Amino acid sequence: MSVFNVELKKVVDDSYEIEIGYGLEEKLLEDIKNGLVGGIKKFAVVTDDIVSDLYAEKINNMLLENGYKSELIVFKAGEKSKTRKTKEFIEDTMLQKEYRRDCCIIAIGGGVVTDISGFVAGTFGRGVPFINYATTLLAAADASVGGKTAVDTELATNLIGLFNQPEKVYIDIATWKTLPRRQIASGLAETIKHACIADAEFFDYLMDNIDKVFECDSEVCTHIAEKNCSVKYQVVMKDERESGLREILNLGHTVGRAIETVSDYRLLHGEAVAIGLVAQIMLAVKFGYCDENDAKRLKELLAKAELPTEIPDYIDRKQLVKKLYTDKKVKDGKLRFVFQKGIGEVMCFGDNVYSREVTEEEAAGVIEVM
Amino acid sequence: MSVFNVELKKVVDDSYEIEIGYGLEEKLLEDIKNGLVGGIKKFAVVTDDIVSDLYAEKINNMLLENGYKSELIVFKAGEKSKTRKTKEFIEDTMLQKEYRRDCCIIAIGGGVVTDISGFVAGTFGRGVPFINYATTLLAAADASVGGKTAVDTELATNLIGLFNQPEKVYIDIATWKTLPRRQIASGLAETIKHACIADAEFFDYLMDNIDKVFECDSEVCTHIAEKNCSVKYQVVMKDERESGLREILNLGHTVGRAIETVSDYRLLHGEAVAIGLVAQIMLAVKFGYCDENDAKRLKELLAKAELPTEIPDYIDRKQLVKKLYTDKKVKDGKLRFVFQKGIGEVMCFGDNVYSREVTEEEAAGVIEVM
Repeated sequence: MSVFNVELKKVVDDSYEIEIGYGLEEKLLEDIKNGLVGGIKKFAVVTDDIVSDLYAEKINNMLLENGYKSELIVFKAGEKSKTRKTKEFIEDTMLQKEYRRDCCIIAIGGGVVTDISGFVAGTFGRGVPFINYATTLLAAADASVGGKTAVDTELATNLIGLFNQPEKVYIDIATWKTLPRRQIASGLAETIKHACIADAEFFDYLMDNIDKVFECDSEVCTHIAEKNCSVKYQVVMKDERESGLREILNLGHTVGRAIETVSDYRLLHGEAVAIGLVAQIMLAVKFGYCDENDAKRLKELLAKAELPTEIPDYIDRKQLVKKLYTDKKVKDGKLRFVFQKGIGEVMCFGDNVYSREVTEEEAAGVIEVM
Repeated sequence: MSVFNVELKKVVDDSYEIEIGYGLEEKLLEDIKNGLVGGIKKFAVVTDDIVSDLYAEKINNMLLENGYKSELIVFKAGEKSKTRKTKEFIEDTMLQKEYRRDCCIIAIGGGVVTDISGFVAGTFGRGVPFINYATTLLAAADASVGGKTAVDTELATNLIGLFNQPEKVYIDIATWKTLPRRQIASGLAETIKHACIADAEFFDYLMDNIDKVFECDSEVCTHIAEKNCSVKYQVVMKDERESGLREILNLGHTVGRAIETVSDYRLLHGEAVAIGLVAQIMLAVKFGYCDENDAKRLKELLAKAELPTEIPDYIDRKQLVKKLYTDKKVKDGKLRFVFQKGIGEVMCFGDNVYSREVTEEEAAGVIEVM
């Protein structure tokens, strides 16, 4: 018998820049020319069939006109496309076009596009670089910091994926103008979540200014994009692999993700999270972590953001309760929730523990009255 | 416009142990009890339908008897199972059994099982730990060091996957006794490759002792397992992400992987690599990197290992040449080969460059006469 030690200790630098601005297409091209992804000359521009006509085709053409090889890869817009099948479609298209490890993926779109593209990049040729060009408020809030990439399966959302950091993220606020009003509202849910967990002042700012987002007010949108990045960054920096603190970004997501699935995606992600935030604060009030006024203010802000605060009638409550058990935080078969502590802080339940067990009865109790 | 810097620099320690011995089932259990994977109590024992009856079921039962939750997940043996579909099957089984991020995968089998299991582990819940229990000589040679995991697709082998390091590797030489003679031979191809690239003395040792592997001689098998680990380790240590030096492990694999696919897996991986090694040394002789005697000795050793040194008649030469272009090393549409320099060394073609361009005519010239 003999033991052989494989020593693999090393320093990894996954740092990157997030650029927030108006109409960043030319900047992207300039960065590539200046070596953002080294000498790579082959690009796969991945997008959905809504963003393709609006922005992605233009960027793809810019690359072609500048002597790069580039393929536009388009899939059907919507959360339902976030599957292993779409991942295979992108991979097979790249393989057919003879892409190997000498390429870079540029994801242009919202969270679905950036999530799936980052995942494809992580496993194509065992890893090629990728760039995120976020065209939705939700992607700016959710997909620009944290390196989480994933697809959904029939049995669970976001459970197949990996941590993968982009080379750079562009948040192009000019693109928000083409978002339907309902999509802007949906994007604001993660923004409100960030205020709830970390920044009471930002919560007040949103209460005063959130309506201006619907008019694409430059100052307000830029401020929100920056705040989203900085709150999320503070959390992710301290816990890149989601072992403890990072759980707090799951605020509202226990019920949120479950209801999103049970609604069969009739609810947008942000709408589902909004409902999840309310469910969470109702439990938080019950447990004494928040008071009634906090709950009232949260509902008020969500309403200002044109987000739902109640569970739609068509949702089967029993099915929803059952679905809660597919949450990633479930431990030893028990439900766990993250809770805010008033507005702008989260509850800590012990050393590096930011979620607590909630019984099925407690969860069901809140869901039944919502 | 504003720029936000995401700083993500950190030290990562992926070190692990490889234990080489006879009948390591009890040792595996003991290690788990002693915290090899922390407090994890849920295991997915992934294996194929040959190894299941021989070893995996036993290990699965041992875990159950010791109070762990464990599921035996079995797929059809063979390279043809190394697909995204099998990966989905394993994932869905784990999700159905309500496995989340609180589990560990134990891969029990040869290279196909360890490759696919490591890949599943890397993307299940964005990464769960895994342990490799290698039951073939090939897995001992190929899958224990390097962290390469992957699946094949219609269009290319090993191009979808990731680098993922196991918690520990067990090389159980006792299991080699149940290997068919042809599988042992196949496993020796990577061993011979290691001797060719890095160790002339080991090459001589193999020339004298390789026949004893077929009798499962304890001393010879242990020595070979250790040598395989150490040669591969020296290379991988210096270049974990395959940016330069690690290419040398591709010796014989340009033609090897292509012929494996073109044969529709009638050729085992090692058999294909053996043919690839010969193709490579014939080109190396042509280019003056090896002499005729080196080529003769390599063929002699391969023959002693009961490996093929010629391309079977049923292989379409033209199709094989075309298939070469699916190789990962292809750059700007040109074929690239790694070459040995005599026996025990490789050619270096510049700063950190270990492969050189080969024209289609040169490659076809050798393939036509083999």
